[in-house]
Amino acid sequence: MADVLIKDGRIITMDPQRHVLDRGSVVIEGDKIVSVGKEVKVRADTVIDARGKAVLPGLVNAHTHLSMTLLRGVADDMELDPWLKTKIWPIEKNLRAEDCYVGALLGCLEMIKSGTTCFADQYFFMEDVARAVEKAGIRGVLSYGIIEQGDPKKRKSEIRVGEKLVKTCHGMANGRILTMFGPHAPYTCSPECLAQVKELAKKYKVGIHTHIAESKWEVGEIIKKYGKRPVEHLDAIGFLGPEVLAAHCVQLTGQEIRILHDRGVKPVHNPVSNMKIACGVSPVPEMLAAGIPVALGTDGAASNNALDMFTEMKFAALLNKVDKFDPTVMPAQSVLEMATVNGARALGLGENLGSLEVGKKADLILVDLRKPHLTPLSNVISHLVYSATGSDVDTVIVDGKVIMQGRRVLTFEEDKVLKEAQKASDDLLARKEAAK
Amino acid sequence: MADVLIKDGRIITMDPQRHVLDRGSVVIEGDKIVSVGKEVKVRADTVIDARGKAVLPGLVNAHTHLSMTLLRGVADDMELDPWLKTKIWPIEKNLRAEDCYVGALLGCLEMIKSGTTCFADQYFFMEDVARAVEKAGIRGVLSYGIIEQGDPKKRKSEIRVGEKLVKTCHGMANGRILTMFGPHAPYTCSPECLAQVKELAKKYKVGIHTHIAESKWEVGEIIKKYGKRPVEHLDAIGFLGPEVLAAHCVQLTGQEIRILHDRGVKPVHNPVSNMKIACGVSPVPEMLAAGIPVALGTDGAASNNALDMFTEMKFAALLNKVDKFDPTVMPAQSVLEMATVNGARALGLGENLGSLEVGKKADLILVDLRKPHLTPLSNVISHLVYSATGSDVDTVIVDGKVIMQGRRVLTFEEDKVLKEAQKASDDLLARKEAAK
Repeated sequence: MADVLIKDGRIITMDPQRHVLDRGSVVIEGDKIVSVGKEVKVRADTVIDARGKAVLPGLVNAHTHLSMTLLRGVADDMELDPWLKTKIWPIEKNLRAEDCYVGALLGCLEMIKSGTTCFADQYFFMEDVARAVEKAGIRGVLSYGIIEQGDPKKRKSEIRVGEKLVKTCHGMANGRILTMFGPHAPYTCSPECLAQVKELAKKYKVGIHTHIAESKWEVGEIIKKYGKRPVEHLDAIGFLGPEVLAAHCVQLTGQEIRILHDRGVKPVHNPVSNMKIACGVSPVPEMLAAGIPVALGTDGAASNNALDMFTEMKFAALLNKVDKFDPTVMPAQSVLEMATVNGARALGLGENLGSLEVGKKADLILVDLRKPHLTPLSNVISHLVYSATGSDVDTVIVDGKVIMQGRRVLTFEEDKVLKEAQKASDDLLARKEAAK
Repeated sequence: MADVLIKDGRIITMDPQRHVLDRGSVVIEGDKIVSVGKEVKVRADTVIDARGKAVLPGLVNAHTHLSMTLLRGVADDMELDPWLKTKIWPIEKNLRAEDCYVGALLGCLEMIKSGTTCFADQYFFMEDVARAVEKAGIRGVLSYGIIEQGDPKKRKSEIRVGEKLVKTCHGMANGRILTMFGPHAPYTCSPECLAQVKELAKKYKVGIHTHIAESKWEVGEIIKKYGKRPVEHLDAIGFLGPEVLAAHCVQLTGQEIRILHDRGVKPVHNPVSNMKIACGVSPVPEMLAAGIPVALGTDGAASNNALDMFTEMKFAALLNKVDKFDPTVMPAQSVLEMATVNGARALGLGENLGSLEVGKKADLILVDLRKPHLTPLSNVISHLVYSATGSDVDTVIVDGKVIMQGRRVLTFEEDKVLKEAQKASDDLLARKEAAK
């Protein structure tokens, strides 16, 4: 007797051959996929009828700041400097652990409802974020954002917080929660800090989540400080390696793309955020052509302002097309790979996640195709990338557990989270005003 | 006794002062808005509780090809030339009147479900499109796409079809259906054709819906043929005027922007299509700064691949930001204006549509704000542009009639349309294959 049988769905496996079954089944036992095929005759405790639905790997949001959902819409359409200095930082100074818990729970809710089953996060109060992830039933790779600006005392205390997260939360919740070290960026972390982090990541066998080459401003800063561009600088100090998850990677030269490739770095494309903050267009087609498995992420809700990976896929498919005056770059299939298999690899989970294959973890989603904007159905991959939004996700399974069915989240009370998040946000903005 | 009372909603009026009422009401009698205010004590046949919802003018999709929903996803990620010659045109050659009816009904369904209440269309078999619009209860400004390539015989027959549409359909369905002449573009219509169309539009007092300066290829073609760039050429032959609705307007010089402004032309921005076909970035901030009320449109579903004006607003807000490395251009408020008041003006309906004001037509939508991705609510305009999608639309009212409530379309059977559209598309693609 299997645990879950999903039957008669349009199965998008994302396996190495990228098989799509027009009508097929997926069988789950425990937290694992035990069968994927055209017709599977098994009995199961839970049978899910997937007629009219696409069944695909849960999407991987490879870079976000989950608790920043509380800051959604508080400031848009501003220059980066006043945005940070007059809006985001003064609010963040007033953030409390409980805010980060509530914000993370809201973020988990939004991700589940839009088909994301696994994400990489970097922020503060990460043990509280872990609590939220545990409750929500989603999968997360968490890192504490280390910012030390070359201050030895701060370095010590910041790294200690990051290390504590790794020690206490790595492997929590049947392994759904993993951790990384999270040195924020080359302009906020000294070479000494990055060297220490690199050593610790090796010691604990975890990855490193950072931001690299997000803006022209950053490139100028790093050249001023170190006489090299960001990727060159990080390579010169021996920081880069296959364990490095590098958000943004917008301002890159061809030489820097070669370095990222040779070191096995895992870049994450964040098209909406890069457009909203006006940082530029990441050379994703060049990275993909170089054989770099670029992943996809939404960034935080303050610079997006949503965590919808379907919308993010549409932006990813279109941005490089117009930038290059070439409609053939970033085809739908490649973009779906970024949001699934590449994302899993980027988080160091390629063996276990990102495709529907026997032996992999049962993280998958059902998308309802019986919608006007998904009709007629001729090419399901095209529809997922160009026409669907997160609202079309019907069912979400993580680690073998059904955590959303018929758009109803089963792991916690949705309305309560919405109310608590509104209150936390109102209180946070009031504290910021009072602190003026 | 009023007909409809919408109460306790967050009212985004888009009136000249852009008033937003945190809690207010809208009263409808017949097809008109008779009151907008904080608290309205009237009795009404239909009372709609708008708590937790935004109430705003129905969105105006100022450029689309509705029946092309049947071609959604049949060809993506291709160069324009093979896309047209091997995919779109061979399929269109096999289009029948009934296909266009079914495709238009599917398009109406998609638009209603995503909050569009009025649209400008250009395609073939437009009397069948009119039938669909009449049935769906939506508002449309229809034009037949005239393509004559300088052939006098074709010109006569094409213009005759366009004129017949104006004569038979203008003012149908209590005025919900209006018409324009639709000369396709300066590279498919000769100066003689455009001159005749201009005369006829004047005679019938209707607008002219066309495509201008969509691609670099077009600019090259027009320079080769006429020694001038598209807008200069059209101005030189006296074609431009306030009745001209000009889709795309991507490849423009500063001088051409001045011409568009001086002639009162109404450009329509189509960011998703321009990105997908890789035509370029329209200088929308420059046009808006020049005082041109640029409208917004999705283009057809074959080059988008959806008709969701919320997603289109997000693209409009972000594309020019990254293109200019300036996050302050295209703020959310301006983008919402493009999709409402500017769209209404572009279609010649500014007096009657585009804002919630006493005396205007009752075309409005309710957006459910109690969603994870719209929480917390601090800035409703930001949420509508950056976080919402069409799936958040709960209720749609056109011409005073409730045509969708609780996401259930009331004017026709949704499932039936989905099935008919799938069949029509399957048959159409089969006919194309058979015709090879």
